[in-house]
Amino acid sequence: MNAEWIWYRNDYELMLANQCLTKRYERDVFVPPFWRMDYFHTNVKFIKQFSLEKEEKIFIKANGKFNIIIDKIENPENKYVRDFNGFLNLSEGNYKLTVSVYNEQTIPCLFVDGETVKSNSDFTVTCNDFEYVKADRGGFYDKDKPPVKFDFLLENTEPVKKTYNDNELHLDFGRESVAFIAFSGVKGSGKANIYYGETEEESRDKENCELIDTVDLSNDCMTAIAKAYRYVTIDFSGGVTAEKVFSVKEYVAQKRQPYFKCENEKINKIYETSLYTLDINTRDFLLDGVKRDRWIWGGDATQSYLMHYYSFFDTGVIERTMLALPNRNPQKTFINHIMDYSFYWIISLYDYYMYVGDRDFLERLYPIAESILEFTKTRIDKNGLLQGKPCDWVFIDWANLDNRGEVCAEQMIFLKALESMTAVGKSLGKDISEYKSEYEKLKVLIDETFWDKDKKCYIHSVFSGKKSEVIKKHPNIFAVYYGLSDIEKSEQIKNSVLENSQIEPNVTPYMRFYELSALAELGETDYVIKQIISYWGGMLDSGATTFWELYDEKEKGSDKYAMYGRKYGKSLCHAWGASPLFLLGRYFIGLKPASEGYGTFECKPCESALIGSYEAVIPMKNGEFRISFGGNELKLRSTETDGIVKLDSRKYKIDFPICENYYIIEIMRGKDYAIKLERK
Amino acid sequence: MNAEWIWYRNDYELMLANQCLTKRYERDVFVPPFWRMDYFHTNVKFIKQFSLEKEEKIFIKANGKFNIIIDKIENPENKYVRDFNGFLNLSEGNYKLTVSVYNEQTIPCLFVDGETVKSNSDFTVTCNDFEYVKADRGGFYDKDKPPVKFDFLLENTEPVKKTYNDNELHLDFGRESVAFIAFSGVKGSGKANIYYGETEEESRDKENCELIDTVDLSNDCMTAIAKAYRYVTIDFSGGVTAEKVFSVKEYVAQKRQPYFKCENEKINKIYETSLYTLDINTRDFLLDGVKRDRWIWGGDATQSYLMHYYSFFDTGVIERTMLALPNRNPQKTFINHIMDYSFYWIISLYDYYMYVGDRDFLERLYPIAESILEFTKTRIDKNGLLQGKPCDWVFIDWANLDNRGEVCAEQMIFLKALESMTAVGKSLGKDISEYKSEYEKLKVLIDETFWDKDKKCYIHSVFSGKKSEVIKKHPNIFAVYYGLSDIEKSEQIKNSVLENSQIEPNVTPYMRFYELSALAELGETDYVIKQIISYWGGMLDSGATTFWELYDEKEKGSDKYAMYGRKYGKSLCHAWGASPLFLLGRYFIGLKPASEGYGTFECKPCESALIGSYEAVIPMKNGEFRISFGGNELKLRSTETDGIVKLDSRKYKIDFPICENYYIIEIMRGKDYAIKLERK
Repeated sequence: MNAEWIWYRNDYELMLANQCLTKRYERDVFVPPFWRMDYFHTNVKFIKQFSLEKEEKIFIKANGKFNIIIDKIENPENKYVRDFNGFLNLSEGNYKLTVSVYNEQTIPCLFVDGETVKSNSDFTVTCNDFEYVKADRGGFYDKDKPPVKFDFLLENTEPVKKTYNDNELHLDFGRESVAFIAFSGVKGSGKANIYYGETEEESRDKENCELIDTVDLSNDCMTAIAKAYRYVTIDFSGGVTAEKVFSVKEYVAQKRQPYFKCENEKINKIYETSLYTLDINTRDFLLDGVKRDRWIWGGDATQSYLMHYYSFFDTGVIERTMLALPNRNPQKTFINHIMDYSFYWIISLYDYYMYVGDRDFLERLYPIAESILEFTKTRIDKNGLLQGKPCDWVFIDWANLDNRGEVCAEQMIFLKALESMTAVGKSLGKDISEYKSEYEKLKVLIDETFWDKDKKCYIHSVFSGKKSEVIKKHPNIFAVYYGLSDIEKSEQIKNSVLENSQIEPNVTPYMRFYELSALAELGETDYVIKQIISYWGGMLDSGATTFWELYDEKEKGSDKYAMYGRKYGKSLCHAWGASPLFLLGRYFIGLKPASEGYGTFECKPCESALIGSYEAVIPMKNGEFRISFGGNELKLRSTETDGIVKLDSRKYKIDFPICENYYIIEIMRGKDYAIKLERK
Repeated sequence: MNAEWIWYRNDYELMLANQCLTKRYERDVFVPPFWRMDYFHTNVKFIKQFSLEKEEKIFIKANGKFNIIIDKIENPENKYVRDFNGFLNLSEGNYKLTVSVYNEQTIPCLFVDGETVKSNSDFTVTCNDFEYVKADRGGFYDKDKPPVKFDFLLENTEPVKKTYNDNELHLDFGRESVAFIAFSGVKGSGKANIYYGETEEESRDKENCELIDTVDLSNDCMTAIAKAYRYVTIDFSGGVTAEKVFSVKEYVAQKRQPYFKCENEKINKIYETSLYTLDINTRDFLLDGVKRDRWIWGGDATQSYLMHYYSFFDTGVIERTMLALPNRNPQKTFINHIMDYSFYWIISLYDYYMYVGDRDFLERLYPIAESILEFTKTRIDKNGLLQGKPCDWVFIDWANLDNRGEVCAEQMIFLKALESMTAVGKSLGKDISEYKSEYEKLKVLIDETFWDKDKKCYIHSVFSGKKSEVIKKHPNIFAVYYGLSDIEKSEQIKNSVLENSQIEPNVTPYMRFYELSALAELGETDYVIKQIISYWGGMLDSGATTFWELYDEKEKGSDKYAMYGRKYGKSLCHAWGASPLFLLGRYFIGLKPASEGYGTFECKPCESALIGSYEAVIPMKNGEFRISFGGNELKLRSTETDGIVKLDSRKYKIDFPICENYYIIEIMRGKDYAIKLERK
């Protein structure tokens, strides 16, 4: 094992979150988050006991002011090493090494490198609260490069189109990215004003575009913060010019590459655009959208994790994001101050448990979930139901919702969080009895309070004792998606709400995620595919090259870019726009973990006339799942994970055992399966 | 009211504490505290509602990145101010101003200055946890000088003695101070090594002195951190020289000046040396000792507050220190990780309540005290008594004590904390029933467990069910000082322990503080004066110009400077050395608050043949108390506080009413009293 930089638990993510969340600007206005931000620990102590069989020269370096105590275990003197020159020369024996490090600017961290003694997660560390935990590490192996920021990759990019008139340079970089603007061959000196745009309209609308910059040019230089754009207008009217203006993309290279190709070119384009949209938003953290907001949100992130589990499977960014969302315990507000987002965070723990399942990580997060649930008790009203306080945001969706009082969807998301907690807690050997009994009680209460026998659906809310009359898709989506409604009720919901065109449609991809997942759970795959084609295809037809925060086909012209009362307020590259990745992977290809930590998988592949033959590669925790389905052949391979593929015996005829209407095809990792099939 | 810089509650103290506590060095070794350090909030939001009767131009400045929202209350738009130029021009109307400020380096803070709208504690502020509190302020009225550090005063000081030989310059500055070393008229360039000393021996002992510095000289310059010294040796053997080397004192000027002068010159010298010792240790915080440790400790601070209440009465430094000692709630370790120090902190709340009594401040600290007591429950054993865990330090005193198991003195300090909590809580209208019942239970338990009828004293401890045999002064001191023993037991303790020369004497001024206070409470003023003369006078005879951390008359020669296994480890200017200030003020002059917040005072002045006539001025919260006692006259004046002076009717004859053996002299503020007296 190589020596690497180590630090106190979660400090790196806290530092990065502070760096990441303070890069949001609205034109010249700096916009920090409106939730509490925790800072990393400035004063920490690293400890390691070891035995040397022969003398050893040990290199020690810390980022911060530091001191060292090296003691023979049998004869501790507890004295600081004086006149330290970078190395300890130790003879054979048993030692305890203690290094205290203080740093306010970036995280205090340590690098120790001897022949046998090397800094890694075998070191313990304390923030001097007398709790000793395993040190964190993250692949920083270069002693001269301590973890002081996130290591983005940089890449120079030329514009695909360039026009210049009246001192204004207009550039189109072909597709949106997060990038700096760089100037070379500067002549003269003065200010240049930059106007960014996700669309050409935006970058040419100097008064209203969301992002601007001003640079003082005299030599070659670059903007200070990478911003999201496809187009820029640069105003050189200050007298200065530059021979060349280009883009320096700041990005993360995904190690794992998913693949999906079918006979429907629109679907292929939707898949590719979804993948690009998620890719651009996958950075130090999973951002909600790269242009306007560029923050981390619990609700958005929970969907992004699931998209990742069916695309890049980047557990690094998933873990960093999960760590950065809550405050340090005890929790005193909801995550992002949104009630539902705290519950999604707990639900995402369960997803993580199934798809990744790192127990150390779950053990680290579980006490936070406990604290969230403890805090949530302060929001339970006399009826035993959740109600937001004035300082809470009961969000559910960007939609026409009156979320005062007891909101049905909110109870359902909370119920799912309790269920998730029970499952994760049980696997970690925690006492889950309280969550279990809360779950049982609340489940009954939701049905009693919100189920409307006549309307055959869940009503939206009860406010001041009065049931709301208007029917919303939201609670009914969650009832089905989270499996809270039985088969009978789910079918009623499908007919009375979900596939009822009289009910106001969802305009956010965010809620489409749950809506289409719910319908897929009810077996409506073809309906889901149709919706993907019309909704996401509709965005493409409207000129999208990345997917949007909100799409309403009724909005035409420049209206479609407006949101939050601002002409270009809408984010046109929003992570939650990428949900076809999840919908196709989870419900069309039908892949999911069959046991904790993707120990085994289950896959129920579908076909659709709208899609035709298709080929796909989906990364799993270990290895990847490959499928090719079409004509009379189903080809399967899982490189590193065993599992089962289930094929509908009512539709196909193959020579495999049948169980409950499905052929059971046992898949051994590393083996190729090519199954000839007949259709019934 | 003038505009001033404002910030989030306690953030200034947290920033200062981080700055203060990271200035400790042991030669070239940086030594940060071994307790958890909290950081200020980096992301805060200031809010102010106001009405303008006419148009107003308002200046706004923040230290940090910031944004502004200014809304008409009747018609909020919630939009950021763009292109902000330093001023808002507002017409008549009702407004809500919101300023978000982010800063990682120094505290985020705000300055607002209009004709009627000015930043001060009328602004509310939140760390974005949706709790809105009054903004803190601290007299920073200059818009160009935000609170980024503590404003020490600086003063150039010439050495009183200067010798130069073999490239070595030896300087004596006459008395210890905390100061930089400054060089002017530098010739050549190279390194100069500085060796500091509280004594001349130390500054000449290059291998063993506690503090060193190396400066790279080429121009006029100063050392980076002010250090505590009287003597320095500067080694110019690197080839560089300086025409002039002097000291730049970094200090706080005390606004209020106490005074004590009597016929005994030794006592006068002890008083003056105590005052200087406390003065030097009174800085951004009340330090324990300026040379070696220069940290903030709960036990030391509690004594220093009391000394201050009888000398400089600097409530600023007292409040800063009280705020800086505990962590943010919830408390998860003891203060300085010392169990007794947490209890002293609570006891100091009661002292503050009596001497200062600012209710806002007490309301701020009370929840911390509650959390300390909640945390303390984890240290109660099956017998209902406190026992330290391995990570706790059960300190009591630097003495030959075995503090394993149930330590009697520890229970007593805890008991006093419960009593303090009850009194403070009651005055704030809190529910104190739990503390009251804990107090009653523990009081009985202490007597049952530790009182030894045969030995007529409290035993030191019970460890593994076994009572310790050795008798220590400590529990018996606390029993008397805190009034836990009844008159009968207290008299027994006095004879069997406190005035028994067979019992090992206390060698720290720290424990002498409690011991002599206890004896004074028993009326042994003459004994106390004798002890002051022998113990503190003994230090003066040993060459002290400031009082020490520990003084043992048996230690001779260079031994008297050694401590912690280091030749000059002992601190020779230690705040707890200054306790004669308290002992003389509280017990000899006999002054104390008679009601909350020094609303009224009570004074029982003594005389002693060892002291003779004396004159004194003691600052009180409001105004000062003046006394001149000697011959046949007692002169009294309290400038701003009413009170009562009680004079022993068994000793004197004056024409005043008597109540329980005391003449009652009612003192009206602002009036002079000159009382002729006859002695009986």
